[in-house]
Amino acid sequence: MTPPLIAPSILSADFARLGEEVDNVLAAGADVVHFDVMDNHYVPNLTVGPMVCKALRNYGITAPIDVHLMVSPVDRLIGDFAEAGASYITFHPEASDHVDRSLQLIRDAGCKAGLVFNPATPLHHLDYVMDKVDVVLLMSVNPGFGGQSFIPATLDKLRQARQRIDASGRDIRLEIDGGVKVDNIGEIAAAGADMFVAGSAIFNAPDYAQVIEQMRQEIAAHG
Amino acid sequence: MTPPLIAPSILSADFARLGEEVDNVLAAGADVVHFDVMDNHYVPNLTVGPMVCKALRNYGITAPIDVHLMVSPVDRLIGDFAEAGASYITFHPEASDHVDRSLQLIRDAGCKAGLVFNPATPLHHLDYVMDKVDVVLLMSVNPGFGGQSFIPATLDKLRQARQRIDASGRDIRLEIDGGVKVDNIGEIAAAGADMFVAGSAIFNAPDYAQVIEQMRQEIAAHG
Amino acid sequence: MTPPLIAPSILSADFARLGEEVDNVLAAGADVVHFDVMDNHYVPNLTVGPMVCKALRNYGITAPIDVHLMVSPVDRLIGDFAEAGASYITFHPEASDHVDRSLQLIRDAGCKAGLVFNPATPLHHLDYVMDKVDVVLLMSVNPGFGGQSFIPATLDKLRQARQRIDASGRDIRLEIDGGVKVDNIGEIAAAGADMFVAGSAIFNAPDYAQVIEQMRQEIAAHG
Amino acid sequence: MTPPLIAPSILSADFARLGEEVDNVLAAGADVVHFDVMDNHYVPNLTVGPMVCKALRNYGITAPIDVHLMVSPVDRLIGDFAEAGASYITFHPEASDHVDRSLQLIRDAGCKAGLVFNPATPLHHLDYVMDKVDVVLLMSVNPGFGGQSFIPATLDKLRQARQRIDASGRDIRLEIDGGVKVDNIGEIAAAGADMFVAGSAIFNAPDYAQVIEQMRQEIAAHG
Amino acid sequence: MTPPLIAPSILSADFARLGEEVDNVLAAGADVVHFDVMDNHYVPNLTVGPMVCKALRNYGITAPIDVHLMVSPVDRLIGDFAEAGASYITFHPEASDHVDRSLQLIRDAGCKAGLVFNPATPLHHLDYVMDKVDVVLLMSVNPGFGGQSFIPATLDKLRQARQRIDASGRDIRLEIDGGVKVDNIGEIAAAGADMFVAGSAIFNAPDYAQVIEQMRQEIAAHG
Amino acid sequence: MTPPLIAPSILSADFARLGEEVDNVLAAGADVVHFDVMDNHYVPNLTVGPMVCKALRNYGITAPIDVHLMVSPVDRLIGDFAEAGASYITFHPEASDHVDRSLQLIRDAGCKAGLVFNPATPLHHLDYVMDKVDVVLLMSVNPGFGGQSFIPATLDKLRQARQRIDASGRDIRLEIDGGVKVDNIGEIAAAGADMFVAGSAIFNAPDYAQVIEQMRQEIAAHG
Repeated sequence: MTPPLIAPSILSADFARLGEEVDNVLAAGADVVHFDVMDNHYVPNLTVGPMVCKALRNYGITAPIDVHLMVSPVDRLIGDFAEAGASYITFHPEASDHVDRSLQLIRDAGCKAGLVFNPATPLHHLDYVMDKVDVVLLMSVNPGFGGQSFIPATLDKLRQARQRIDASGRDIRLEIDGGVKVDNIGEIAAAGADMFVAGSAIFNAPDYAQVIEQMRQEIAAHG
Repeated sequence: MTPPLIAPSILSADFARLGEEVDNVLAAGADVVHFDVMDNHYVPNLTVGPMVCKALRNYGITAPIDVHLMVSPVDRLIGDFAEAGASYITFHPEASDHVDRSLQLIRDAGCKAGLVFNPATPLHHLDYVMDKVDVVLLMSVNPGFGGQSFIPATLDKLRQARQRIDASGRDIRLEIDGGVKVDNIGEIAAAGADMFVAGSAIFNAPDYAQVIEQMRQEIAAHG
Repeated sequence: MTPPLIAPSILSADFARLGEEVDNVLAAGADVVHFDVMDNHYVPNLTVGPMVCKALRNYGITAPIDVHLMVSPVDRLIGDFAEAGASYITFHPEASDHVDRSLQLIRDAGCKAGLVFNPATPLHHLDYVMDKVDVVLLMSVNPGFGGQSFIPATLDKLRQARQRIDASGRDIRLEIDGGVKVDNIGEIAAAGADMFVAGSAIFNAPDYAQVIEQMRQEIAAHG
Repeated sequence: MTPPLIAPSILSADFARLGEEVDNVLAAGADVVHFDVMDNHYVPNLTVGPMVCKALRNYGITAPIDVHLMVSPVDRLIGDFAEAGASYITFHPEASDHVDRSLQLIRDAGCKAGLVFNPATPLHHLDYVMDKVDVVLLMSVNPGFGGQSFIPATLDKLRQARQRIDASGRDIRLEIDGGVKVDNIGEIAAAGADMFVAGSAIFNAPDYAQVIEQMRQEIAAHG
Repeated sequence: MTPPLIAPSILSADFARLGEEVDNVLAAGADVVHFDVMDNHYVPNLTVGPMVCKALRNYGITAPIDVHLMVSPVDRLIGDFAEAGASYITFHPEASDHVDRSLQLIRDAGCKAGLVFNPATPLHHLDYVMDKVDVVLLMSVNPGFGGQSFIPATLDKLRQARQRIDASGRDIRLEIDGGVKVDNIGEIAAAGADMFVAGSAIFNAPDYAQVIEQMRQEIAAHG
Repeated sequence: MTPPLIAPSILSADFARLGEEVDNVLAAGADVVHFDVMDNHYVPNLTVGPMVCKALRNYGITAPIDVHLMVSPVDRLIGDFAEAGASYITFHPEASDHVDRSLQLIRDAGCKAGLVFNPATPLHHLDYVMDKVDVVLLMSVNPGFGGQSFIPATLDKLRQARQRIDASGRDIRLEIDGGVKVDNIGEIAAAGADMFVAGSAIFNAPDYAQVIEQMRQEIAAHG
């Protein structure tokens, strides 16, 4: 397996000193910055846009930034985030009329591209784009709503996504987002995930490094 | 005239250390934090939402926060921003099907309410709500697009808005946003504005206090 | 003045025995059935559609039915309600891209046409259609939301609408809807209204005939 | 097999005396009241909303009310209908951005939840929500349009849905709606349905009890 | 008065040989090609887009092309038509969230800019943009629907628009579109119009030159 | 195999003399006129509508016209194009809320009906409508965007669609659109296509007949 990636979500960071927060969590061992973008249309909330992403780059953040677009439509923001320094850009297939085109836009802009699947969204949206995705992101909670727990049925879905990825023979990350914690990250890894978004589990912990290290151990033990 | 208010726009601040930026500009003499919210639907850009506003309150910012909603629809975000600590909430009449209702929502939530007028929007939207607005905001550039200069025709529109406010006998702020700088703030004040949003003119200056002080002098000389 | 019309709103009637309710209120002296149509898009509620209107006609109701469309878009429902037996059809100018066309559709279908003004909507939408409206309806509460009181500023707006109607020299009803009760219907009539929608004030009263008679006396005393 | 449920659709009832109609059809042996909600957006018609549902409860109807939402979006009306006394709430997966979330909203409100499939909609929307549905409703006509006959291809689709339900081992109803009559209900039952919506077949019959009894016999003979 | 302009609308031309038709009508004395763009959203019809405009330029048409956008939103098509060779671009104020911005886009692209007013649309949309329009187009029928006659109330509206233009002291055309014919063009000119769109009146005539000449005589006699 | 059909797309023809262009390409051996309709909503471009289709019929074109609707919604334009002389009408399943209904509308109007699949769209939309389609159109580029090449993954998708068609035992065309040229039409035919849209490959060639003949030879050699 490719080395697992831990991607703390900025949603749980302190937005008043975001640069420092991100610096700290990377220093504590995180691999990727997970950047949640909500537009109050695709999901009932509005978070942060390209200017905040660019501010992180200007602040000196060099780690990969993984932009999850919970917006509709997606094409204009793809361009804006690519210019703002995004490394990955993922979007929901229901949110774009032209999924293949949007994936191409992301790659043409020099970023890694991915599709995100809501808990109830079938995996068939992958049928004809396995050669155009660098990451498949499964939501294990409903995006845009707070206070939810990991949906257990996601474990089976992870196994099915893992099978599709392995069958493709391609280098595609399988990312999971929603309710990931130290005590379930092992079985999530065992189900096939190799990129782990975690928000409160990391940012609400007293010691970022410790929780990230625990996560890595759990992954190593089960993955 | 009521004392003029200087309201630096966070759009020109450094979002990676926003708490510190806002602290500094308030320490330099600013009166109000102007908070620009764009949703990639009403305007072609996405900026920051309620979580960032709340983070400023948690950081310790106690000055009034003036939330300008460049979003459509507006009602759900009105509630979210009121909870996040907004002091003023303003929106565009074209962006709400029920303008009177939205104004009431803002006041019921304990905030000051206002309508925002795009450069081409007629002032007639004020005809039946003068008793429900605490602020009238005139845009002197088109919101959501960068790099614009103050539209000169706004001076006449300011005079007409000032007349409506004075005729009402009510305590209503007349706010201006777009291309405001030291060298035009005097004539803007003379046209009737008493609340001044400025972005790059303040945050791009080497010394925030000096430019704010110059603005106050210009206002005093012409207002 | 043309004889005033009392128009009980079915929103406060018992929908499980609507024919009987409408029969009763007409027997008690009401002139017109006010039929509130909400589509969960123009307003955040969904009420009743053309089939219910038609059922009233099939039940034997012959009084005028005054259909207030709180929907967007309006053109398809105009045709449906005309076929279902509507007498008046009114809509909000913000809810139709082609106001003149929609008014013509209503008249071409043999109904009386009208525009409805939300509390904050300027009367300028009347500027070029006075020859195409049979009724002007002013909302004195925000449509689609419950539990509101009569907005006092509507009295001035009624006087301005009355002036426009009188200046036109045309036979146009001035209708009012929202918070109308026995104790304010007099001053509403004095301000120029001659068609009065009332919901709970009538249907929640123990004796429909008594309250309708009281309303008529108040109108006669002040109108 | 669980006992079949007969669910007369109110669309064919007399809306002027709906309480009486529903009472009669339940007294004649019907099990469930099928309540068709159209919003003039998801389908080109507008029918009845939560207030009418609540009026049935106030009238004394205690049988299960099966609310079929032909609306988009669905979440706000889910809450309204739960409060109005709905027992089942079903919606179309294409009409909600967050299907899993909407299903949870329904159950959290104490109702049974279901997905509805248009004639052309693939069953794959069920892939990851079998643990969250209490009913699967297959449309055998296109919703929102009158005068259609049962689409024969639905029989195969019923068999496939039945297979999915049986494979899940869960207690899930398989409901059918559209063109169901005495002379085809047998083969529909044989294909796997166990909950049958019928409109004109029941309400246009001279004797409700007789037609319901005939339906039960046909189901028993073939099911 | 500036010399009147006759602008035949391509809607009445033969689209199978459009270049030749436009050539002929220009040879017959027309001044401007009126190009009607409908998108099946702002109006219920779809006509022709930028590729057809460009084909006319490639065919050798050098006369001004006057593009009337009956579309929403407008900004993307403004760019496309400017590149396709448009001379004028006009749009409906209700169809753009940012009217001032859209007018600027047109001028920045080197075209003349204008606003179009539906029959019921108030002229107040002109209040703050008189310095940004080169043409004001009044619709004397409802756009997007066939077989309509000139709406007489437009004559008063023309006089009011003429007054606004004269008061501005600017060089702004006053254009009229809908039901213009030889027998009413005189009074239309007398009401202040100086740019005349005509469709069937010209293209359905046996001799284009004759009808255009008659129109000019009527204008000269009354204007 | 049924005889292959060559369908030149009018998008690459000269719109200023479209009748002549279509005449020429049919005289050169083409079988069908492919008519691309874009509405600036479903795709970011606007092309031509029903009036242009009708003009071709009036011009004397009697060959089948194959209308590809890249629009949303589709139902109103289905009626318009049927009246304008369309032979085939195809649309995207994502663009209609009621796919089965839209297919029926097309057939009821006397045309052949089809579904179009974007490069990333799964074939499952065919699951329950094989008895209602006369053509399946696979896009091998993203519709609405220029300058793209044939997407190679479409070959596999063609084989899968061919299998579904053969399994159905029905007479259904398998059409391909996007980047089709003489040098790849052979392998496209080999993958199962039997109806070939080509734009620039034909209209930009010096000799239409020669390229069409070459295409037929390639198809015969590989198909």
